[in-house]
Amino acid sequence: RCFHFCKLPGRVMGIRLLRFTSVVIIVLLLVAGALTALLPTIKDDKLPNSRREPKTQSQSALDSFTLIMQTYNRTDLLLKLLNHYQAIPHLHKVIVVWNNIGEKTPEEMWNSLGPHPVPVVFKVQTVNRMRNRLQNFPDVETKAVLMMDDDTLVSAHDLAFAFSVWQQFPEHIVGFVPRKHISTPSGVYSYGSFELQNPGFGNGDQYSMVLIGAAFFHSGYLEDFQQQPEAVHALIDETQNCDDIAMNFLVAKHTGKPSGVFVKPVDIRNLEKDTNSGYSGMWHRAEHLLQRSYCVNKLVNIYGGMPLKYSNIMISQFGFPNYANHKNKM
Amino acid sequence: RCFHFCKLPGRVMGIRLLRFTSVVIIVLLLVAGALTALLPTIKDDKLPNSRREPKTQSQSALDSFTLIMQTYNRTDLLLKLLNHYQAIPHLHKVIVVWNNIGEKTPEEMWNSLGPHPVPVVFKVQTVNRMRNRLQNFPDVETKAVLMMDDDTLVSAHDLAFAFSVWQQFPEHIVGFVPRKHISTPSGVYSYGSFELQNPGFGNGDQYSMVLIGAAFFHSGYLEDFQQQPEAVHALIDETQNCDDIAMNFLVAKHTGKPSGVFVKPVDIRNLEKDTNSGYSGMWHRAEHLLQRSYCVNKLVNIYGGMPLKYSNIMISQFGFPNYANHKNKM
Repeated sequence: RCFHFCKLPGRVMGIRLLRFTSVVIIVLLLVAGALTALLPTIKDDKLPNSRREPKTQSQSALDSFTLIMQTYNRTDLLLKLLNHYQAIPHLHKVIVVWNNIGEKTPEEMWNSLGPHPVPVVFKVQTVNRMRNRLQNFPDVETKAVLMMDDDTLVSAHDLAFAFSVWQQFPEHIVGFVPRKHISTPSGVYSYGSFELQNPGFGNGDQYSMVLIGAAFFHSGYLEDFQQQPEAVHALIDETQNCDDIAMNFLVAKHTGKPSGVFVKPVDIRNLEKDTNSGYSGMWHRAEHLLQRSYCVNKLVNIYGGMPLKYSNIMISQFGFPNYANHKNKM
Repeated sequence: RCFHFCKLPGRVMGIRLLRFTSVVIIVLLLVAGALTALLPTIKDDKLPNSRREPKTQSQSALDSFTLIMQTYNRTDLLLKLLNHYQAIPHLHKVIVVWNNIGEKTPEEMWNSLGPHPVPVVFKVQTVNRMRNRLQNFPDVETKAVLMMDDDTLVSAHDLAFAFSVWQQFPEHIVGFVPRKHISTPSGVYSYGSFELQNPGFGNGDQYSMVLIGAAFFHSGYLEDFQQQPEAVHALIDETQNCDDIAMNFLVAKHTGKPSGVFVKPVDIRNLEKDTNSGYSGMWHRAEHLLQRSYCVNKLVNIYGGMPLKYSNIMISQFGFPNYANHKNKM
């Protein structure tokens, strides 16, 4: 029957055309149906009442960092600090370097208290070495490493800011603890902090190292460290000290500039006293500072020169915590 | 006669040899005498009781800077400041941009009160323009320019430190006065300081400009400024303002980074109140800040975009004035 269509101009419109049109429409519907099958399936975690897909897996290698924390005999502090550090902005992953030889890691407990914001990997060590934390861990997927001592608490604000500073100075050690060496007329170097005389470059003090126990640096330096002369590794093993001094020598040599950039921390705390283990850090040993002066001179021998350079740049965050912290009398 | 020599072995030593030896000795003495004539003559100023030869003439173009100070109607302040600034370390030369049209410069008095540590050049202007100070003066022999307003006193310590910072950031404007722009939902920009809302990048404040009235920058930017579109020069002439905002736009566009690096001054003073002229600076005009917001938007139009970038880096001098100014609770 030809109702509506028959009224249209051109009597060629007939049943044949009607059939043809119907076939076309049906084919189009089938094709559309097939196409919808190709659409990406809606994942469970995009449903409103479920958790978001973890962002960290997709964060760019440049926009996030890996925390490496070596621990020995202070598991209570470790766990306290992990609760804090696991939530730092831009953190990609945590690597715990487990120097408690023969002791089980707290991994089970850790997992039972999940979920956690980022993956935490426990790297069990076979020998308790200071330089274990400087291995070139394949777990590190980011360009930046944040290295923290297991008794040091730095606020999230400080870390977020220092990370942004590292991104502007990626070849430097950007951190919170400055130290220096000074030379003496005898040619023997000494290691110390601000209590030592200024190196004599105009007024004010200078620093020539930034300690890696609270600092950001490029993950590539882990590989570089492994490539250093065996004598360097032997020195660190002999003293169970000075890995940070060695890293500063490495970086200074590599860049030809001061190894570190000092960021003045607003809130940095040493939690040593809070530990139940009764263990206090290596730096309490009587010979600690003398060892470090010894290391400076040994490293100068090994490298055939003094590569460390001085800097007096101190970086703070503009307008934080006090929004007028830059204000002056003018 | 043959006395001493005749006793020597070998009777060949005779008068002939004696003559020969004498001739050789005389020739050697003559040659030595001729050589001493070639030695550099000892200049008068190397004598212990005379002044040393001025160092500035031989200072490397990178190790010293040129002070450019524009002045209008505050000659008393100018002279006070010149006494201070003429002795700043690493200063090569002073250029005074004389905007007092038709008025004699104090050059005669200046010379009568010599000698001075560095040359001071008075550049007499024909029109009182704010942008006179941004001419590409051929007198500038250094890579760095220090630009100071004629009512601003910055301590020598601050200047020496900021100059050393500039040397590490030579493509930036390194100075003591940070400002920022903010954008608003309407797309119109506003200009201001810390009293404006933070631009919203995490916590703390940000700055996107460093004013050139107390800053170091590369002398090459003077040439660049002359090359800017005529509309930029016209804007500055129209407002008698905003030359510094324009310079920040220029530098930001050139580097693709934040234009300025802020160095927190220890001692910076505005001497406006001390002038006898009764003239107070342009920034007291009611429309001053509104003009600057206006300039920001005009410059965005001229450049077809907003090139300014934010930074929150605040630099201070490590260990100065307080040798433990970096110390923290740890």
